[in-house]
Amino acid sequence: MSLRDYPVSLELGPHDVRIAIHTVGICGSDVHYYTHGKIGPFVVKEPMILGHEAAGTVTAVGTEVTHLKIGDRVCMEPGIPDLNSKAMRLGMYNVDPAVRFWATPPVNGCLTPEVVHPAAFTFKLPDNVSFAEGAMVEPLAVGIQAALKAGIKPGDTAVVMGAGPIGMITALSALAGGCSRVIVSDVAQPKLDIIGKYPGVETVNVRNTKLLDYVRATTEGWGADIVFEASGAAPAVLDVANVVAPGGTCIMVGMPVDPVPVDIVGLQAKEATLRTIFRYANVYDRAIALIASGKIDLKPLITETFAFRDSVAAFDRAVEARPTDVKLQIVL
Amino acid sequence: MSLRDYPVSLELGPHDVRIAIHTVGICGSDVHYYTHGKIGPFVVKEPMILGHEAAGTVTAVGTEVTHLKIGDRVCMEPGIPDLNSKAMRLGMYNVDPAVRFWATPPVNGCLTPEVVHPAAFTFKLPDNVSFAEGAMVEPLAVGIQAALKAGIKPGDTAVVMGAGPIGMITALSALAGGCSRVIVSDVAQPKLDIIGKYPGVETVNVRNTKLLDYVRATTEGWGADIVFEASGAAPAVLDVANVVAPGGTCIMVGMPVDPVPVDIVGLQAKEATLRTIFRYANVYDRAIALIASGKIDLKPLITETFAFRDSVAAFDRAVEARPTDVKLQIVL
Amino acid sequence: MSLRDYPVSLELGPHDVRIAIHTVGICGSDVHYYTHGKIGPFVVKEPMILGHEAAGTVTAVGTEVTHLKIGDRVCMEPGIPDLNSKAMRLGMYNVDPAVRFWATPPVNGCLTPEVVHPAAFTFKLPDNVSFAEGAMVEPLAVGIQAALKAGIKPGDTAVVMGAGPIGMITALSALAGGCSRVIVSDVAQPKLDIIGKYPGVETVNVRNTKLLDYVRATTEGWGADIVFEASGAAPAVLDVANVVAPGGTCIMVGMPVDPVPVDIVGLQAKEATLRTIFRYANVYDRAIALIASGKIDLKPLITETFAFRDSVAAFDRAVEARPTDVKLQIVL
Amino acid sequence: MSLRDYPVSLELGPHDVRIAIHTVGICGSDVHYYTHGKIGPFVVKEPMILGHEAAGTVTAVGTEVTHLKIGDRVCMEPGIPDLNSKAMRLGMYNVDPAVRFWATPPVNGCLTPEVVHPAAFTFKLPDNVSFAEGAMVEPLAVGIQAALKAGIKPGDTAVVMGAGPIGMITALSALAGGCSRVIVSDVAQPKLDIIGKYPGVETVNVRNTKLLDYVRATTEGWGADIVFEASGAAPAVLDVANVVAPGGTCIMVGMPVDPVPVDIVGLQAKEATLRTIFRYANVYDRAIALIASGKIDLKPLITETFAFRDSVAAFDRAVEARPTDVKLQIVL
Repeated sequence: MSLRDYPVSLELGPHDVRIAIHTVGICGSDVHYYTHGKIGPFVVKEPMILGHEAAGTVTAVGTEVTHLKIGDRVCMEPGIPDLNSKAMRLGMYNVDPAVRFWATPPVNGCLTPEVVHPAAFTFKLPDNVSFAEGAMVEPLAVGIQAALKAGIKPGDTAVVMGAGPIGMITALSALAGGCSRVIVSDVAQPKLDIIGKYPGVETVNVRNTKLLDYVRATTEGWGADIVFEASGAAPAVLDVANVVAPGGTCIMVGMPVDPVPVDIVGLQAKEATLRTIFRYANVYDRAIALIASGKIDLKPLITETFAFRDSVAAFDRAVEARPTDVKLQIVL
Repeated sequence: MSLRDYPVSLELGPHDVRIAIHTVGICGSDVHYYTHGKIGPFVVKEPMILGHEAAGTVTAVGTEVTHLKIGDRVCMEPGIPDLNSKAMRLGMYNVDPAVRFWATPPVNGCLTPEVVHPAAFTFKLPDNVSFAEGAMVEPLAVGIQAALKAGIKPGDTAVVMGAGPIGMITALSALAGGCSRVIVSDVAQPKLDIIGKYPGVETVNVRNTKLLDYVRATTEGWGADIVFEASGAAPAVLDVANVVAPGGTCIMVGMPVDPVPVDIVGLQAKEATLRTIFRYANVYDRAIALIASGKIDLKPLITETFAFRDSVAAFDRAVEARPTDVKLQIVL
Repeated sequence: MSLRDYPVSLELGPHDVRIAIHTVGICGSDVHYYTHGKIGPFVVKEPMILGHEAAGTVTAVGTEVTHLKIGDRVCMEPGIPDLNSKAMRLGMYNVDPAVRFWATPPVNGCLTPEVVHPAAFTFKLPDNVSFAEGAMVEPLAVGIQAALKAGIKPGDTAVVMGAGPIGMITALSALAGGCSRVIVSDVAQPKLDIIGKYPGVETVNVRNTKLLDYVRATTEGWGADIVFEASGAAPAVLDVANVVAPGGTCIMVGMPVDPVPVDIVGLQAKEATLRTIFRYANVYDRAIALIASGKIDLKPLITETFAFRDSVAAFDRAVEARPTDVKLQIVL
Repeated sequence: MSLRDYPVSLELGPHDVRIAIHTVGICGSDVHYYTHGKIGPFVVKEPMILGHEAAGTVTAVGTEVTHLKIGDRVCMEPGIPDLNSKAMRLGMYNVDPAVRFWATPPVNGCLTPEVVHPAAFTFKLPDNVSFAEGAMVEPLAVGIQAALKAGIKPGDTAVVMGAGPIGMITALSALAGGCSRVIVSDVAQPKLDIIGKYPGVETVNVRNTKLLDYVRATTEGWGADIVFEASGAAPAVLDVANVVAPGGTCIMVGMPVDPVPVDIVGLQAKEATLRTIFRYANVYDRAIALIASGKIDLKPLITETFAFRDSVAAFDRAVEARPTDVKLQIVL
């Protein structure tokens, strides 16, 4: 990994905008490409720019663009679908097999001074949302997508298994989305301490306490209306059927590498549903609105900010993360 | 109307609890029976106890009751369906035609020292929820039912037409249920001032500002994802098709006495949905959880509290309400 | 109206196909433009080709088109949305305000030898679906959209108010979509006789029988799970609240010109939902599959076929329709 | 197993009916109790009457029963929930932990001359539905529940994995519920031959053909909108993620004894949903309506009928079933 001159096409189509990048967050997938050179079938074969969590300022707009203008502060959806695809027409453009996603080989990412992006996937930031928060919209979108698919009913109790960055963000999304309380479980106490500071969040360290015991004791034995599995760990996946309430919904946010055992009969006895999410669709405006309204405060999750020139150091820190690290960002 | 001795059966069935009433809120329907002696087909033909918004303390439990014990602080759903009905089996017991509802002739209400009630429709209050808040759960349940049926998605923008007690409560329910912002409209500025103090609430006095103009200006012309019609006024009902966004949902909370014009073609052009609610079902526990978690604060809506011996004065005040009156309560 | 030479652009974009038109159905809207020169805000100011229900054969394919080839027999969605619109991303491209729809001024229709159309909105017909049936997919799509939005549960009872072409097609769509029985009401006995021949359809002539009486008598007093209002007549719209079952859904298919009275309180007492549809989105493939499988047989609804040279006569027949006329088609 | 005199309480409560049993079907669970004496945690410790698929004639009605009278031909839901339970209020009484289910130890079944049953769970058969079909309503209810939870959209393509009795019935339910075509897979050709005779059903013998290949080839590579897993076999469960379409739904009908591997990442890439069912709730009337309307014909699935005195022989035949056996019934 290095900072270097690299040719990027900045040709502006009629439906595009050009954006000067201001802030880029480092995601686990970026780190994984750095350390392993691939994720599953996606292999880095040629030099590739990393980064897909970004905010910046519009510097040029295409001839057909009406909702953005030069100087607008914006954030961008990193995945661009084929507008002529069936998935697009169905409103689930996130599962279009032809989607091109930043920093997923062979597509370059956005940790670079300037990018061109379709205006349809570029969103204006309100004045009270900072670039740092704007660069958090991408991971927040995953949490909002999870909350959306959960079909939360006002006053639901949720469990979030796993207190990594996405687990934390999912917990905040579930609260903003209507849950009265969210129980976050993990083995890492420093993470639980961070998320446990938010009102409405309760934490369970599963080294000490059985999650099922805690859930039963605090739901009159009924279980959690919603279970977000955000760890990807096989024992957690197996536990969702225990923890969920009758008629409840489990959202699989974490990505176990291989097929993992699921307790089908346990889910059936409760007629529970297991839903999955893949990135997000149509949630950027929702995520921004929830930040702007103050319902979701992501600032405590931004652990440290690095200068662009220190990008390699930032990635090295991400590789050797401290127990209290949640999100690292780079400012250009 | 008078305070008098009145024979009430306090016989305890195996699935019942007996409750010493502590607090009773005064509802518009109570006032209407007081002033008009009837509501539509429901005519008061014999002396009837008023009141259906109540909290109290369990004083006896039936032999089959397991989830409540003597001394529990509770609130009660005022409508009791036929457990053998089709509506009950379908989970929508609120629309069971055979439902018996407190203070709906010929069924007595609960503004009386002691009542017997089915344990299945009696809910324990957490320690941090007061009797006064417990007696607010009934009107809150209407707002939660509205929020539930709206199918709010996280970050939605809602409009609430009408800033009466139910309109205010619906606005708070919509925010707790996932909306990022709620726009409340009315002609009564004192009401708008009260609800406008809550974070996330914006107000529009439709004497001065056209609601449609405000909504368009603050939603990039898209419209409100959800419109709660809580005024029952014909012009408001006609306006929902203008204000709602494409694909949006209008919830009819207010009850216009007669059929009112609806802009069907206007709704069709947006493929909008118009849903209705009737009281509530399965939301008391949700309402209580949202109060207990601090997500809904009803205390600013409790305007004044009267002693039981001053009940007639309390009702007279409700008849001649002050502009800033929201909810009056009576304590036994 | 006349047959004349008329310049139409046949330029083929990379995502387009060119189609030789074979069959075109005559829709009520075509007839209305012929007789009145406008529909609401849409005024015919210059010569315009009519027709939007068409099937034909692919004669050329754009460079980026993969799912169609020359010689494919196809039918086409007549509405083309802006692919960069918010409605498109949300999967409800039918409500995109920028949609361009055949034979809606100033957009030309398809009653012309050849058209160019986006491949994404062009659908291949299976071998066992004729051109005549292919040209029926457009009106069928309206019925399928209605059935889709109704959220039919297997075994539901539906009512369809109005036995015009769309009412009939909605009845067939409701049966194919899971209803066990459909009750069609109208005052025109010849129409009822046509649709009443289909298994599963019962008819009520509301000149002789009150629809509510029939529905109550045949649903144990419960009402119809789904009510499709396909007449656009004010008395029918007012009646939906009577006829629908508790928890049921009313789909507004008909388009009353002005706002019409709706019995809000009647709907509320049943917690019923009133949904609307606007044309259709993502249902062409469903409609074709249901024809191909034999679940929907539209052939009895095609009353008569005219040669292209007799197009004016065909329209005149449509203006002075016979009581048994359902759909007239023109073959090129 | 033997035919013997056995004391059964026939005391009639006010909400009960007494029923002379006419026909009882033999279910796999009955056979399993016969051969193994237990299913999971349910152990037969004392003599128990088998049978839960029954139809008969009302011989007495309780004082509060209004919708049934002596002489009515009926069928019965075998599971009776606690009417005061939370699950009951929520309309999902099937998942009430306190449900008492016929022929599930220690609750007796209905293969006995007379039973007493709650009228609320007893359903009148129309004149054109035979006792034999009435006794098929119970297994049909499972298929209808599966079709209901699948949220079938008109014209969907479904896959049913497994051609046992429940798989076959699920296929018919899916077609009646709106699917245009259903692909049934199994290794047993005689079963596939039986279900393959129904219009709309295609069969795949997975000994010869890979299900995924067949589905891809016949859905333009898109996948099946709905996958019903009705085999309970681990390889089938693992395959649902391959076969389902983007945004599709997999319904787990089969019950694998132990947790089985599920391809979570495969489901995520399609944002697919995995739903489960447990028996059924509120579908008996739907099932009866679909039989009565002719949309579901179960008669070809009733393989053979035995006299009550030959009940032991009937069970022995069920143990040693022939390849073409689907449903065996006993007539009293």
